[in-house]
Amino acid sequence: MSSVDHERAGFIGRGWKWLKGSIVKCRDKVVEVARKTKKLGQDDPRRIIHSLKAGLAVSLVSLLYYFKPLYGGFGVSTMWAVLTVVVVFEFSVGATLGRGLNRGLATMLAGALGVGAHYLANLPGRTAQPILLVLFVFLLAAAVSFVRFFPKMKARYDYGLLIFMLTFCLVSITGYQDKEVLDLAHKRLSTILIGSFTAVFVSICICPVWAGDDLHKLVSGNVEKLGNFLEGFAGEYFKVPGDGESRDNKTFLQGYRSILTSKNSEDSLTNFARWEPRHGRFRFRHPWKQYQKIGSLTRQCAYHIEALRIYPYPDIQAPAEIQRQIQDACTEMSTESGKALKELASAIKSMTKPSSVNTHIVNSKTAAKVLKFLLKTSSCEDFVLLEVMPTAMVAAQLVEVVTCVEKIAESVHELASLAHFKDAKPEQKPALGQPQQLQQTMQQFSGIEGPHHIITINGSSAVLPEVSIQECGTVVHVTNTDIIKGSKAKTNVREMRQYLSF
Amino acid sequence: MSSVDHERAGFIGRGWKWLKGSIVKCRDKVVEVARKTKKLGQDDPRRIIHSLKAGLAVSLVSLLYYFKPLYGGFGVSTMWAVLTVVVVFEFSVGATLGRGLNRGLATMLAGALGVGAHYLANLPGRTAQPILLVLFVFLLAAAVSFVRFFPKMKARYDYGLLIFMLTFCLVSITGYQDKEVLDLAHKRLSTILIGSFTAVFVSICICPVWAGDDLHKLVSGNVEKLGNFLEGFAGEYFKVPGDGESRDNKTFLQGYRSILTSKNSEDSLTNFARWEPRHGRFRFRHPWKQYQKIGSLTRQCAYHIEALRIYPYPDIQAPAEIQRQIQDACTEMSTESGKALKELASAIKSMTKPSSVNTHIVNSKTAAKVLKFLLKTSSCEDFVLLEVMPTAMVAAQLVEVVTCVEKIAESVHELASLAHFKDAKPEQKPALGQPQQLQQTMQQFSGIEGPHHIITINGSSAVLPEVSIQECGTVVHVTNTDIIKGSKAKTNVREMRQYLSF
Repeated sequence: MSSVDHERAGFIGRGWKWLKGSIVKCRDKVVEVARKTKKLGQDDPRRIIHSLKAGLAVSLVSLLYYFKPLYGGFGVSTMWAVLTVVVVFEFSVGATLGRGLNRGLATMLAGALGVGAHYLANLPGRTAQPILLVLFVFLLAAAVSFVRFFPKMKARYDYGLLIFMLTFCLVSITGYQDKEVLDLAHKRLSTILIGSFTAVFVSICICPVWAGDDLHKLVSGNVEKLGNFLEGFAGEYFKVPGDGESRDNKTFLQGYRSILTSKNSEDSLTNFARWEPRHGRFRFRHPWKQYQKIGSLTRQCAYHIEALRIYPYPDIQAPAEIQRQIQDACTEMSTESGKALKELASAIKSMTKPSSVNTHIVNSKTAAKVLKFLLKTSSCEDFVLLEVMPTAMVAAQLVEVVTCVEKIAESVHELASLAHFKDAKPEQKPALGQPQQLQQTMQQFSGIEGPHHIITINGSSAVLPEVSIQECGTVVHVTNTDIIKGSKAKTNVREMRQYLSF
Repeated sequence: MSSVDHERAGFIGRGWKWLKGSIVKCRDKVVEVARKTKKLGQDDPRRIIHSLKAGLAVSLVSLLYYFKPLYGGFGVSTMWAVLTVVVVFEFSVGATLGRGLNRGLATMLAGALGVGAHYLANLPGRTAQPILLVLFVFLLAAAVSFVRFFPKMKARYDYGLLIFMLTFCLVSITGYQDKEVLDLAHKRLSTILIGSFTAVFVSICICPVWAGDDLHKLVSGNVEKLGNFLEGFAGEYFKVPGDGESRDNKTFLQGYRSILTSKNSEDSLTNFARWEPRHGRFRFRHPWKQYQKIGSLTRQCAYHIEALRIYPYPDIQAPAEIQRQIQDACTEMSTESGKALKELASAIKSMTKPSSVNTHIVNSKTAAKVLKFLLKTSSCEDFVLLEVMPTAMVAAQLVEVVTCVEKIAESVHELASLAHFKDAKPEQKPALGQPQQLQQTMQQFSGIEGPHHIITINGSSAVLPEVSIQECGTVVHVTNTDIIKGSKAKTNVREMRQYLSF
């Protein structure tokens, strides 16, 4: 073989290698895109339905071209109908309605204003007309551009303002050449209305996606995620991990993280939901803003939980007595808060008034108070600060979480009354003997061994709970004059109340 | 006066009252809107300039209508130029360019595809044509609607995809009636290019607003805000407040809060900045993504600071010795981190490599280690847990903040090398005798009273600092073989190293 042959073979070989490499790369790329596409569709099958609906809406409106009478009537303006469908058709009914209404109303107003400007500019005479028109356009465009900076206008009417500016310019300027300015305005309006109507019709009538439904599910789902975390947290946190078991991999310990970044979705869903008519269980003027409030409180709570994660796991091979007591109180706080949140989530989901939430909140608050009492009274002689620190810090964060949960409960109650949720079964009184470990702790501090004295807080008032002592089932209120039955506990209970006071 | 007169007088009186009330309300509303408008303009005067520029761009393109030859050439299509300017013209150059390019390219591609579809549909014959065309439109609209769900496509090409769908529908369908489908495609493309060019021209040539500049300022400003907070925090926190002095009202203690919600602005500015050409100090392909990274680390740090706020102020009328020592270490950590962040911010601003940052980071890390040492060794006999808790918890959060600051410094160094920042003066060695209070603490634990022994960490290596002992100005490295000068400190220092190890 000559050197030229060699070179040629080398060249062909390299070319073949490159070609093969490219084909493999291409195939990998295609496989990856196919995988992603499948995942997108599986994550939310409504996306596929939406795409088909979009195709249908555009096809429907394009039929306008095939009906001679209509096409003869609208002429070139028919394309505005197609254009409108393409830009107005959105994923949810609320978004589609919002854009459609914005577009329709803005076109109507700007069309009228454009015709007015056109006639006004005609008054001084033919020469001044173009100058006046350009001046009008300049002023209006500048003014509307500035109005778009107002945050409230930006949130709800940004698209309308854009279309307003656009239609005004088109109608007032085109009029200079096209004498039939009224006709233009009329055609533009009609076709845009036809387009908007088609988009809204398809959006509502075929498998509608309601932004309100999504918001409802998102917010109740987030509250539930928090509840799952809190219910499982303390058990996981204070447990000695087994071999090969990693605590960070538990799904319910990670689930809440999506809440940290859900603000945008909530805001836009609220915005869309407000455009939606009565549907399903939601009336017109459903208090959507309240969901935003619950959402932001949920996020606040999630920030505290995020802060919990930085604390190292406590070394609990042989916890000191005080540490064990703190851990018990933490477990109680966390579990009861979690139960309360899960109750609230299911109340939102089923749109019934939350029933036994207050019980759980009262239990968790009692635990918080016991904890404060423990921290105040115990001087830590037999261990160093670093050992008890993680537990104490988790405790401090959990106290904050309990406050957050109470606020969430309040705003869910508010939602329930605003949205006229159905009544559920009457509220349960705090169950007797439920917080076992707290009872023991309290006994130890109050020095009562025999009858079961439990400190609970009357659950009937969520805002200003009264401290009460429950003795063998008899509830005795601790008032300012300290009329206390069970004389043995008297002094200790008084001391305790001092610490338990908010 | 008859009863009718009375009634009439009452009616007029009520009417007058209502009218007066309405006028007052109306006046108040107008005053409020005027106030808000003024504030919007004052907050960022570029908004006023933008509005004027928008007016100018639209006026410029509307002149097309007044030049007969051009109007004759483009006919009704001239309006596409106006439409393009209105929808493409955005606040920053990057956003305008991004939309303009998206619109131009999408029109070009979809136009070609539309013409192709038109001819393809013509092949089987006149009857099948409309059916085929509607089918094409349906398939393309459905496919593009689905592609818009891909997050990457949504972020950068959403507008282009919309325009692609729109143009394809217009060109392919209009062709059924209008034989001059090629002409339509050509006119639409030309006018859209004219519109895009006008918008981009006005945007770049008259007081351009560069998204890149804004991003640069936003990120460096956020780092600076954190620095201000940390520098001032410890002093404010551990200070006994004077009469009528509220600690929460200090501006620098609130400034960082805007960082918590700045993610959206950063993301969209990064997106826009990537469309921008070389300008000012920024080359084409400036590493904008790195700003996003620094921004997210800054936000992480801000979350920790937000968590700091929940801790109650410590009762520091007469702090115990251990508490005082912890507070000293906290002050050192906080102040040095703050200084490091402010250095980093000014390095980003001036686009020079940060010089003395490592010194501050090393100082704050030393303080963190001293703190861990204090927490590990001190058993707290003379005070109860609740008293030392706030200080200890603040300390724990500050340790996290120090870690965060180190990460921020690393990513700023990365930015400096990616963006070829200018060299600054050579790095300073840690100043002698700077951490006074730490020195005292260390002395106490190492039992050295006479010569000034300071534990510092060699600032030359940011990744793996070496522990060294500085004695009367002579730096002696503590290596694995523990060659230590100053025999008295030997055992204690060895013990200390054990705790100081990462």
